[in-house]
Amino acid sequence: MERIRLGMVGGGIDANIGRVHRHAAWLDGAFDLVAGALSSTPEKSRASGRALGLAAERCYGSYAEMAEAEAAREDGIEAVAIVTPNHVHGPAAAAFLERGIHVICDKPLTATMEQAQALERAVRASQALFILTHNYTAYPMIRQAREMIAAGELGALRVVQVHYAQDWLARAGDSKQAEWRGDPARAGLGGAVGDIGTHAHNLACFVSGLPVERLAADLQAFVPGRAVDDNGHVLLRFAGGVRGMLWCSQVAVGHENGLSLKIYGDAGGLDWSQEEPDRLWFTPYGQPKRLLTRGGAGATAAARAISRVPGGHPEGYLEGFANLYTEAATAIRAARHGSRDLGLLPGLEEGLAGMRFITACVTSSAQDATWVTL
Amino acid sequence: MERIRLGMVGGGIDANIGRVHRHAAWLDGAFDLVAGALSSTPEKSRASGRALGLAAERCYGSYAEMAEAEAAREDGIEAVAIVTPNHVHGPAAAAFLERGIHVICDKPLTATMEQAQALERAVRASQALFILTHNYTAYPMIRQAREMIAAGELGALRVVQVHYAQDWLARAGDSKQAEWRGDPARAGLGGAVGDIGTHAHNLACFVSGLPVERLAADLQAFVPGRAVDDNGHVLLRFAGGVRGMLWCSQVAVGHENGLSLKIYGDAGGLDWSQEEPDRLWFTPYGQPKRLLTRGGAGATAAARAISRVPGGHPEGYLEGFANLYTEAATAIRAARHGSRDLGLLPGLEEGLAGMRFITACVTSSAQDATWVTL
Amino acid sequence: MERIRLGMVGGGIDANIGRVHRHAAWLDGAFDLVAGALSSTPEKSRASGRALGLAAERCYGSYAEMAEAEAAREDGIEAVAIVTPNHVHGPAAAAFLERGIHVICDKPLTATMEQAQALERAVRASQALFILTHNYTAYPMIRQAREMIAAGELGALRVVQVHYAQDWLARAGDSKQAEWRGDPARAGLGGAVGDIGTHAHNLACFVSGLPVERLAADLQAFVPGRAVDDNGHVLLRFAGGVRGMLWCSQVAVGHENGLSLKIYGDAGGLDWSQEEPDRLWFTPYGQPKRLLTRGGAGATAAARAISRVPGGHPEGYLEGFANLYTEAATAIRAARHGSRDLGLLPGLEEGLAGMRFITACVTSSAQDATWVTL
Amino acid sequence: MERIRLGMVGGGIDANIGRVHRHAAWLDGAFDLVAGALSSTPEKSRASGRALGLAAERCYGSYAEMAEAEAAREDGIEAVAIVTPNHVHGPAAAAFLERGIHVICDKPLTATMEQAQALERAVRASQALFILTHNYTAYPMIRQAREMIAAGELGALRVVQVHYAQDWLARAGDSKQAEWRGDPARAGLGGAVGDIGTHAHNLACFVSGLPVERLAADLQAFVPGRAVDDNGHVLLRFAGGVRGMLWCSQVAVGHENGLSLKIYGDAGGLDWSQEEPDRLWFTPYGQPKRLLTRGGAGATAAARAISRVPGGHPEGYLEGFANLYTEAATAIRAARHGSRDLGLLPGLEEGLAGMRFITACVTSSAQDATWVTL
Repeated sequence: MERIRLGMVGGGIDANIGRVHRHAAWLDGAFDLVAGALSSTPEKSRASGRALGLAAERCYGSYAEMAEAEAAREDGIEAVAIVTPNHVHGPAAAAFLERGIHVICDKPLTATMEQAQALERAVRASQALFILTHNYTAYPMIRQAREMIAAGELGALRVVQVHYAQDWLARAGDSKQAEWRGDPARAGLGGAVGDIGTHAHNLACFVSGLPVERLAADLQAFVPGRAVDDNGHVLLRFAGGVRGMLWCSQVAVGHENGLSLKIYGDAGGLDWSQEEPDRLWFTPYGQPKRLLTRGGAGATAAARAISRVPGGHPEGYLEGFANLYTEAATAIRAARHGSRDLGLLPGLEEGLAGMRFITACVTSSAQDATWVTL
Repeated sequence: MERIRLGMVGGGIDANIGRVHRHAAWLDGAFDLVAGALSSTPEKSRASGRALGLAAERCYGSYAEMAEAEAAREDGIEAVAIVTPNHVHGPAAAAFLERGIHVICDKPLTATMEQAQALERAVRASQALFILTHNYTAYPMIRQAREMIAAGELGALRVVQVHYAQDWLARAGDSKQAEWRGDPARAGLGGAVGDIGTHAHNLACFVSGLPVERLAADLQAFVPGRAVDDNGHVLLRFAGGVRGMLWCSQVAVGHENGLSLKIYGDAGGLDWSQEEPDRLWFTPYGQPKRLLTRGGAGATAAARAISRVPGGHPEGYLEGFANLYTEAATAIRAARHGSRDLGLLPGLEEGLAGMRFITACVTSSAQDATWVTL
Repeated sequence: MERIRLGMVGGGIDANIGRVHRHAAWLDGAFDLVAGALSSTPEKSRASGRALGLAAERCYGSYAEMAEAEAAREDGIEAVAIVTPNHVHGPAAAAFLERGIHVICDKPLTATMEQAQALERAVRASQALFILTHNYTAYPMIRQAREMIAAGELGALRVVQVHYAQDWLARAGDSKQAEWRGDPARAGLGGAVGDIGTHAHNLACFVSGLPVERLAADLQAFVPGRAVDDNGHVLLRFAGGVRGMLWCSQVAVGHENGLSLKIYGDAGGLDWSQEEPDRLWFTPYGQPKRLLTRGGAGATAAARAISRVPGGHPEGYLEGFANLYTEAATAIRAARHGSRDLGLLPGLEEGLAGMRFITACVTSSAQDATWVTL
Repeated sequence: MERIRLGMVGGGIDANIGRVHRHAAWLDGAFDLVAGALSSTPEKSRASGRALGLAAERCYGSYAEMAEAEAAREDGIEAVAIVTPNHVHGPAAAAFLERGIHVICDKPLTATMEQAQALERAVRASQALFILTHNYTAYPMIRQAREMIAAGELGALRVVQVHYAQDWLARAGDSKQAEWRGDPARAGLGGAVGDIGTHAHNLACFVSGLPVERLAADLQAFVPGRAVDDNGHVLLRFAGGVRGMLWCSQVAVGHENGLSLKIYGDAGGLDWSQEEPDRLWFTPYGQPKRLLTRGGAGATAAARAISRVPGGHPEGYLEGFANLYTEAATAIRAARHGSRDLGLLPGLEEGLAGMRFITACVTSSAQDATWVTL
């Protein structure tokens, strides 16, 4: 199997998220990175490209230039990873989609709902695939949790508790990553709620199989001078009478990437935490709690299918992220024969749902946490 | 030091909470149980009394009888523990208070706000002490957490997350303990919110040092036929701009007594869980997380003062509960000389705050989770 | 049920272990402490007695005086707790046993094997009971582990790993408790191996149901000037071909009372740690690990029988210790009618086995860790 | 930077360890796999090669054929990964080393001491590098632990406890991986002690900075019919008077890959477990325990240098393994200019030390656990 030729927009060598996408693309040997517009300044873009071993002529000064040039090459990229600040997602993705190049795009979908709608049109008009990296959905034990719920192992669902707590923005700082995330023009109106709340929302819906129908959000900006929220408390009402709570915070001192999900039904409960992703706690009602492990006795086929090493040899964030890339490679190969099937990969719908979630949170909070329908 | 003569209302030998109060009274050798109206049926009351070694003439058929008879004895009880269903708390407590007998009463204060107001009058009219067993406030590491916050170790507080999750009411049952808790006439309007939500509320306020000013509550009764809530999600606004969330549930399958409290300020974060009460996790901003243990290197004077065994020899629920009783014994001895000082013991004020919390939750939820001021 | 009249030898108000015995005796309301020879100096003994509310005439200057005087009283003590340094255990116990007073004695049995043999004669000559407080055997989940193994839930046993790690003697100190433990004349030849290794040995045998037949020990004294071992590594060969390892250390920085036991058979494995005593991890071969909790869904009758509060309300060290006392009370009441049955309580045999263990460790280590038969 | 051309001996698509090496080689984009002798049967080797996208002419029937052909190609491999059963390591490595091709070899070094000596000669005669994948040494927090000890943060070392517990061989089975490991001709005389005990030994020495000087081992084969040990208890004496214990087991039901290391000195203690590799627990004497995390506040430069994603986004087994490969790539690039420096990479010396360890364990156990000098 030949590797898929991949380009990247954003993700210069200093950028954290670009590095993540590259490791994810490489881990299973499914992609070669061959082109890039890796920075918003052409010079930096080329320096990053050289450091990554890209051919000089494929280090581009802008995504527009890259889309045009690569589409014209015989050996041009088949797919592009977009790992820029949020406001660039939409136009960059559209530039590749309209040339038939598949897009793997970081979340959230865009910075604004208008951009999202424009991107929606671009996706619908293209034969190429659009994949959104809600990477936490590709952890093996998350896939297993989803399957267990779909199979009824928790009975009728009742309550969903989801948290995403970090502390890296607990004080004002000037890192590049912090900077654009605090700027509504580039990040969108949501701060923590857009950056990590949207992951929590996506994960809760993915695992429960239920959409959020209404929410009431109380968002705060605790750090003086911050233009977007850095903490949010959200009451959730899912389809089917299921209730929940979402807490996202970037000022919760003591948390690194504390994404946790607990789901309760009338027949059982599940508990999972991103910082120990190989472990899923399952309590069938009236029985002892069980520790299900990826690759261990508790793993189902869904978990084993995206597992690389035996249980007890921990897999982590990059392996989960790589699962998305490797499934993307499979979808891209199928797309050569006309398939548009994304399987479990998140795409446009999940991106739009995320934008509605962010918008609803901001709207509700501005109205003193009244209920808003998504 | 002679032991204090104690009576008990409710708490027959089958009753869980009466047993807890007895162990707590005995552990430090500070009380003798000498009289009881241990059941609502006189016959059972006497059988329970005999099993506990009470003299036959001090096994009473009702609290009223007991209050009168004990007040008349030279060697009558100095204090009474009230461990009945909620609707009996108020009148029973009043019967002893008006005879100058100190009252140690289980929570919540009463079943209704009217009863609470009547009890408030009785407390204010009496020279005797009124102590409410919000027992979780007497865990050593909770006392330490409170002290650390008061000393500024967390900086300016921002966020409080408090949960109390159980699963023993996940299905309809007919245990005696479940039965009265589901009856608004005996338990009050709150279900989970009154039984355990009020503990969570009390603990959050005790440790943070802040009152809840406004709340928005979304309560549910998931189990068919249940007349009170069994799950509740509550947005909290504390004094001083601190925000929070409270979740209480008696249908969260997989939790036994999952009371957890996390508090974050601009200089640090604390994390404590009742199921491992000897441990307090403290993260000073920008430093590694630390494990503070009761009796260990991390313990402050506040924790050591109410600690019985060395660190690593776990203390638990009964030790925490006994701390209340032993502090009550000290307060009672001081009261002989005119003191009314309760120190850190919860009393009428905490009971009234709890009633306002329950009432606000029920009111807010009935109005679709609008904000209610406490 | 009237309380049993208890005396105490050793355990002045500053002494940690005496305090533990008192809480344990009081917790379930089964004993009254009415007499004491609480210190080796008569004056301190009386001061401690007063502080504990003992009648002045029952605060004795020596155990010998106490044994004689109490045996002569109509309302004399029925049982005595001996909580002195090890070298006093034997003669003090004998003084009470020969007067028909039951003895509850701290471990190890004595300081020397000669003392142990003398005590053995005293126990065999007396109608009174002799109970040794190997308290860890009375944790509910330890009882359950023993029952599960006896019932074959682990299949044929293979391996036993037991550790007891502390750090309170990691440096030379001069606390009273440290001082006598480092003096072979008072503690015996074993240091860590006698103080905590013997607990580990006892627990491993109690739960597995197997005696240690041979051992090879490598003992060390790391702290300069220490006359007894403060760390020991021991290879164990149990009856039936079961192999194991015991590690005891009082210089393992970071451990408070890290007593842990892991047992493996061909059908399953168990894992328990004293610092979380309510939890027992059980893995049936080929199945997910299960968390069995005291009072929870995983608890068997053996655990529930000695459980006071619901699961998730943690019980700890004092509750476990109190289980021994309350079972002792039951045995003492039965002894009034001629019974000598100790049930699961540890007694003389366990004490002698402990002495053989200590002696074998010291002997083996002196011979460069050659095998010694117990 | 161009990728290094890599070949592989062993590691057909069904083989677990070959897959691990490939992911490790790919994760950072430092290697291309271009040739292989992937199976001991030529046909399977070619099928595996095709599935991995190798050119048909570079799918070889044997390592000898591959060494010769690749050495003759202009674009031949620069390095080879050897992932066969143990008895093939030596001759295969020699075949490449003598042609100047760098070798990355799985552990243990060889099946027998004779093979080890032959390989030693081949390594010493070659200009090419020889790297042994004791992969656990490349976890960031292990590197940090080593650095902390070297810097004196634990003071003078005293005790080292190291365990490696698995349960996948608790019963007789016929998986290919189990089969050769139970055959002394292919695995060597050590079973568990060779397969995982040698990892534990290597890790303890790497982190402590100390060699094991003497050991006494008690090895067992619990599963009927097994020709090699499946459980081993080993007393360790390190240089400088440091004592320790090593336990390795492949029959410890409930453990997946339970490799844990605890090291204690007079100034502090460290505790690390492979199943949570991003966490290192550090207790400075007399202070609270601290949680040091990879990428978090507790991480030192040594940990950050081999860290890919922020703290709280877990890295695992493959990331650790990839650290070895990426450091190997650096060493290989430097070797083009004459360097032979392996930095912290394990190589021949570590391999020989491992062989001495295995041999000493088997010898000691055969002599009833007498001390053997390494």
